[in-house]
Amino acid sequence: MPGKKINIFDTTLRDGEQVPGCKLNTKEKIELAIVLEELGVDIIEAGFPVSSPGDFNSVREITKVIKNATVAGLSRAVQKDIEVAADALKYAARPRIHTGIGTSDLHIKAKFNSTREEILQRAVQAVKWAKNFVDDVEFYAEDAGRTENEYLARVVEAVIAAGATVVNIPDTTGYCLPFQYGDKIAYLVNNVPNIDKATISCHCHNDLGLATANSIAGVIAGAGQIECTINGLGERAGNTSLEEVVMIIKQHHGLGFYTNIKTEMLNPVSRLVSDTMRMPVQPNKAIVGSNAFAHSSGIHQDGFLKEALTYEIINPETVGAGGSKIVLTARSGRSALAHRFHKLGYQFTRNDVDTLYEKFLEVADRKKEVEDEDLDIMARQYKQEAIGV
Amino acid sequence: MPGKKINIFDTTLRDGEQVPGCKLNTKEKIELAIVLEELGVDIIEAGFPVSSPGDFNSVREITKVIKNATVAGLSRAVQKDIEVAADALKYAARPRIHTGIGTSDLHIKAKFNSTREEILQRAVQAVKWAKNFVDDVEFYAEDAGRTENEYLARVVEAVIAAGATVVNIPDTTGYCLPFQYGDKIAYLVNNVPNIDKATISCHCHNDLGLATANSIAGVIAGAGQIECTINGLGERAGNTSLEEVVMIIKQHHGLGFYTNIKTEMLNPVSRLVSDTMRMPVQPNKAIVGSNAFAHSSGIHQDGFLKEALTYEIINPETVGAGGSKIVLTARSGRSALAHRFHKLGYQFTRNDVDTLYEKFLEVADRKKEVEDEDLDIMARQYKQEAIGV
Repeated sequence: MPGKKINIFDTTLRDGEQVPGCKLNTKEKIELAIVLEELGVDIIEAGFPVSSPGDFNSVREITKVIKNATVAGLSRAVQKDIEVAADALKYAARPRIHTGIGTSDLHIKAKFNSTREEILQRAVQAVKWAKNFVDDVEFYAEDAGRTENEYLARVVEAVIAAGATVVNIPDTTGYCLPFQYGDKIAYLVNNVPNIDKATISCHCHNDLGLATANSIAGVIAGAGQIECTINGLGERAGNTSLEEVVMIIKQHHGLGFYTNIKTEMLNPVSRLVSDTMRMPVQPNKAIVGSNAFAHSSGIHQDGFLKEALTYEIINPETVGAGGSKIVLTARSGRSALAHRFHKLGYQFTRNDVDTLYEKFLEVADRKKEVEDEDLDIMARQYKQEAIGV
Repeated sequence: MPGKKINIFDTTLRDGEQVPGCKLNTKEKIELAIVLEELGVDIIEAGFPVSSPGDFNSVREITKVIKNATVAGLSRAVQKDIEVAADALKYAARPRIHTGIGTSDLHIKAKFNSTREEILQRAVQAVKWAKNFVDDVEFYAEDAGRTENEYLARVVEAVIAAGATVVNIPDTTGYCLPFQYGDKIAYLVNNVPNIDKATISCHCHNDLGLATANSIAGVIAGAGQIECTINGLGERAGNTSLEEVVMIIKQHHGLGFYTNIKTEMLNPVSRLVSDTMRMPVQPNKAIVGSNAFAHSSGIHQDGFLKEALTYEIINPETVGAGGSKIVLTARSGRSALAHRFHKLGYQFTRNDVDTLYEKFLEVADRKKEVEDEDLDIMARQYKQEAIGV
C-alpha cells in the first residue's frame, strides 16, 4: 500500500457514547468493540474508566477480547484518574492512556482558575504519571482550536519530552475553519523541535459542519491520526465521521495516504451502531445515509444509466451499501421492474413480469415510490398464488 | 453591515425536492417559499418548470406571492426548456432563468456524445435564448468540479459575454477537497477577463461530507453566491446546508462576509422543512439537530455551567434553538433540578425541591435521562397534591 498510513482512532465508545440517549451496557460495548476491530480501526477508545464503575468494567472487559487494536482509556490530568485508567487497562495487549487538560486561556481561567505555567506543569506531570503504567501515552490539549499557537507549541514540546507518544490537538468547540486548523497543525510541525518523536492527532467537532474537512486539513499538514466516530456521533453536533474521512483518503489517492479500514463494512457497521445506540442516521448522510446512493431526478437517472460515473464517485459496493438505487415510480417501465426483480434474486418470465407490472402500478399510484420490500411482498404473493396457496 | 454580501440561493424547492420521498404539492411549495423569503434568502429556486405540469404550476404560483426575493427556474440548455421556464416566471417581480450544460469530458462524452467546442456553442446559445426573456440569467457548468480549468474558464468567459449575470460552478458529484474547489474558483477569478461582470456561485454536494467546507473555500476565493438547502437536503448525500454556511459566515467575522439571513429563524424553518418534506434531521446535525446544543458528560456540564463559552461557540437563541440543554440524570444534584424548574417557570421553595428531588431520583433511575416534559408532569402532580386534588 503506497503512501503514509493514517491511524484511525475510533471514539464511538467514549465520545460517541457520551451523547444523551446513547449509553451502552458492558455487553453492548464489547460487541461493538469486536466489530470495530474487525473493521480495522487502529485504536479503540473504550471509555473513561474513572467516570463510573460501569464504565471501568466495560473498558476492562473490552481489553480482554481485543487482540490487535490498541485500547485507550480517557482520564483527566489527575493522578487518581490515571491510576484508575491504568487499572482498567491492565489486561490490554496494547494499552494507551489518553490524558490531558484544557490549554486555551478560556479553559485555563474559567475551568481551572489557573495560569499557563501551572497548566504546563500539570500537563507534564500527568504524562509522567501515565508513563509509570504504560509506554503509549496520548496527551490531549483540550480546546487547542482556540489555544494560542506559541503556548500550544510549548505544551506539546514539554509533553513529548515527558514521554507522550501521541499529541492530540482537539478543536473542542468545532470552531476552526479548515485552513485555520491546518495552519495550527503546520505550526506545530514547524515549531516543535521534538515533534518527530510523536504522532499528531486530529480531534474535531462538527458544530459548524466542518469536522471532516478540518481533519483532512490536519493530515495534509502533517498529522498521522484522526479521532472519529461511526456516523459522526458525539456530543452536540458530534465528532468527525469515520466513514467520511476514510472514504476521502481512499478516493483521493493524490493525497498519498491510506488507512487499514475495510470499507465494505462501513454501511453494516453504521447500521449496527445506529441500532445499538438508538441514534438515527439521516437519509442524506454522506456514505451511510439511506439515500447516499439514490438517484431520482430524470436527468440524473438518464445520465446515471448511460454511465454511472457521471453522477457517482463511489461504487456503493465499496462501502457495503448494496448497490445504487434507481427509485421505481408509476413512471418506471416493465424493463426497470424486471431488472429490479432480477437483482432481488427472482427468476420471472416475461409473462410473469407483465402480470406483476399491473400490481406494481397499483402500488406505485398509492405509494409514489415502490421499495424493494414492496417488491418482495409482491413477488412472494405472486408465487404463493401460482402454487395455489 | 461590514464586508462583502454573500447571496444565499436556496434550492430546497428544486434540488432538495428531487429527493425520493420529498415531493411537494403546489400548496406546500408556496408555503415554504413564503417562509424562505421571510428567512431572508436572496434567491429562491422554485422548481424545474419543464419537468412536469405540476412543477410548472408551482413555480408560477410562487412568483405571484414572492415580492422581494429573486425567483429562479431551472432549465437544460434546450430552447423548449428555456421557453417553458420563462413562461412559468412571467409574473415574477425578479425572475431568473437558471440554465446550463455538463462541461466535464465525462459528461460531454457519456451524456451528450459531443465535443468541447459544440458544448461551448450550446452553452452560449442557451444564455442568448434566456436573455430574450429575462435580464438575470444564471449559467451552470454541470460537473465543473471535474472539468479541466482551462476549458471551464473559456466556457465561463463565453457565457458572460453572452449575458450571463451569474456563473454557477457545481461540484456535482461532491468530489472536490476544499483547497481544490477554492483553487478552481481562484483560477476563474484570475483567468476569465470579464469575470467582474458576473457573480460566481458555489453549488456543492455532500457525497464526501465536504459541501459546507467547499462552499466556504469558494467564497474565500472570490465567489459571491452559495447555493444551498435547508437541512442539507438534496439527492444522494444532499447539498450544502444553508444553516451551516450562514453560521460560519456569521461566527467568523474575520472572513469579512455577511448574509441577510435572520438566523433566529434557522431552527423553526429546519423543523418546518423536515416535517413538510418528511425528511428527518439526525440529532447530531450541526446547528439544527436536536442535540446540537446538548451537554451531557460530567466534565462538559461542569465547564459549561462555569462559563458557557468553554464548550459553546454559538448562543442557541441566535439560531432559534431555545436554549442549551443540560441533561438531567440520577447524578444531577438538587441545584441543577431547582435551576431547571425555575427555567420552566415554576416557583418552588427549598422544601418543595427536596420533596420533588426524591421523586426525580425515582424517575431518573427508571429513565436514565429526565426530560422537561417529565419535570412538567412531576410539577403538576406535586401542585395538585399540595392543593389536595
